[in-house]
Amino acid sequence: MIPLRILSTGVAVPDNCVTSSELDKMQRHAHGYCEHRSGVAQRYIADASLRQSKLGAQALQEALRRAGLAAAGLDLVIAACAVPEQAMPATAVFIAQQTGVSAGTPAFDINASCLGFMVALRLAAGLLHDRQYSRIGLVAVDLPSRGIDWDAPEASLIFGDGAAAVILERGAGPAGIEGFRYATYPEGARLCQIRGGGTAHNPRTAVQASDYLFQMDGKGVFRLASQYMDAFLKNLLGEAGVTLADIDLVVPHQASHLGMEHMRRQLRIPPERMVDIYARHGNQVAASLPSALHHAIDSQRAPPGSRLLLIGTAAGLSLGGMVLSL
Amino acid sequence: MIPLRILSTGVAVPDNCVTSSELDKMQRHAHGYCEHRSGVAQRYIADASLRQSKLGAQALQEALRRAGLAAAGLDLVIAACAVPEQAMPATAVFIAQQTGVSAGTPAFDINASCLGFMVALRLAAGLLHDRQYSRIGLVAVDLPSRGIDWDAPEASLIFGDGAAAVILERGAGPAGIEGFRYATYPEGARLCQIRGGGTAHNPRTAVQASDYLFQMDGKGVFRLASQYMDAFLKNLLGEAGVTLADIDLVVPHQASHLGMEHMRRQLRIPPERMVDIYARHGNQVAASLPSALHHAIDSQRAPPGSRLLLIGTAAGLSLGGMVLSL
Repeated sequence: MIPLRILSTGVAVPDNCVTSSELDKMQRHAHGYCEHRSGVAQRYIADASLRQSKLGAQALQEALRRAGLAAAGLDLVIAACAVPEQAMPATAVFIAQQTGVSAGTPAFDINASCLGFMVALRLAAGLLHDRQYSRIGLVAVDLPSRGIDWDAPEASLIFGDGAAAVILERGAGPAGIEGFRYATYPEGARLCQIRGGGTAHNPRTAVQASDYLFQMDGKGVFRLASQYMDAFLKNLLGEAGVTLADIDLVVPHQASHLGMEHMRRQLRIPPERMVDIYARHGNQVAASLPSALHHAIDSQRAPPGSRLLLIGTAAGLSLGGMVLSL
Repeated sequence: MIPLRILSTGVAVPDNCVTSSELDKMQRHAHGYCEHRSGVAQRYIADASLRQSKLGAQALQEALRRAGLAAAGLDLVIAACAVPEQAMPATAVFIAQQTGVSAGTPAFDINASCLGFMVALRLAAGLLHDRQYSRIGLVAVDLPSRGIDWDAPEASLIFGDGAAAVILERGAGPAGIEGFRYATYPEGARLCQIRGGGTAHNPRTAVQASDYLFQMDGKGVFRLASQYMDAFLKNLLGEAGVTLADIDLVVPHQASHLGMEHMRRQLRIPPERMVDIYARHGNQVAASLPSALHHAIDSQRAPPGSRLLLIGTAAGLSLGGMVLSL
């Protein structure tokens, strides 16, 4: 058990909301196709001028506002994005700059694709617990619209841009991380990928514009995740010393409607015990899970004292889970 | 004090070694120009087919060999690269795959540009200390040659490709991290950057081939780092409860010969108390500091019981320092 106090949460989305009806027209589909196919009623899509870090800073500022804190009250900024704003420097640097934290406040990135927030939450809790830092701003922001392959019928419909942030302090009471587990199966490394952006495919080696687009083999992800999820979950709950009956609310990565429905059935829990913001936001990549957490806390479905299960899959292919008491 | 045991270290470089004399010819400079200008006698440059993760896996395998361990003995792989192999998934996934770790071993990235290794070392020590993991493979690998702007007289001459890895376990004795400090000054965010590779500059927004090249304002970095380094170092040593006289060996990020010489004078220490592999490797970005650490340990300049100061600057602009007892 790593004590941890979540002081506040915040989210931000771009101004531009695109309904699935509008997407039907834009992509020349029959009316109703995009929502039926994806389960997404609307998603937010940034215009080309919006900086990822600006949206991240908005979420962090919203979390600061809700905590009644100034940006100068943070002594570390962590960004957990699946894709950065630039190859260098870290996205956290740009977020720190636009949030207005004090000069000298450390800023670095943690990248575990769609589950970066969960991994970073675990690491942040440790840094608070051993008193390296006293108040951390953790931000996840992704703009998947910048990498959508509009010719890919599946992946193009499910994503939405967004940001979410939490303000974290060292826990003193019973709140904290009761269990954390992360597992990577590199046999699935190519199931979700963006080939460009790094040293492998760039103008110095060999690259085409499509290398900067997100590629997904949804069925492959589903197959591999299903193969490992049962044992993974059993081990996670066992290590935390709890059963599913002890979990008040499941906060899943909002990967896809089919994936979440499968997860819900696997867990054998009713819809009211699982947070689902997918239809209104789509899959916001690394911002997805903390956005769902924000909505759960904001709507008082996750009050102080409640025990949450954060769970999901990430490019890798990785499985991640956390038992978190608020 | 976070106890930490470094079981072993390992390094890897590409096959292709380019001397500064060869570079003089390639870049049509007078004989001696490149070495005089950069302080680098030779650097390793990967051919276009070498994968960053393959070089990282070689370093990790070398560290495993030196520890007498199989890859299955790791329960976490962290990659700390300034630039990833691909935008997605994390570079650690590809390194884990090519190292042959057991399926399910978690793998994620930490990015603090040139100082990613130092930040990741601190985070890994915490994860071992609170018993989340028992043996971590931490790898830093960068291929700066993929982003060298050969028209930039300064930045093109100083970089070299490379990888370094450490195997870490929970400390039991007096070895560990006595102090760690990291400070980011986003006013210097544009002093070292690669604008492409993420959501800001790509085919969906607006990008040119030069956006994938590394840009550096060396004088600006030097000015900003000099402004903050004195107080930074004083605070770091103060928090660790040591003075410079208690430091057996300084292991700096091998940024540039002028930067390191300035650091040495600032610290008022003789050359034999500072590790310098720069002339034979150049600046290996995130792999630079752990490569220097490897050489210090391998050459028995940093025996068990010695106290090291790891120190350097990173794109951000960030300053990082650690007091580490072996």
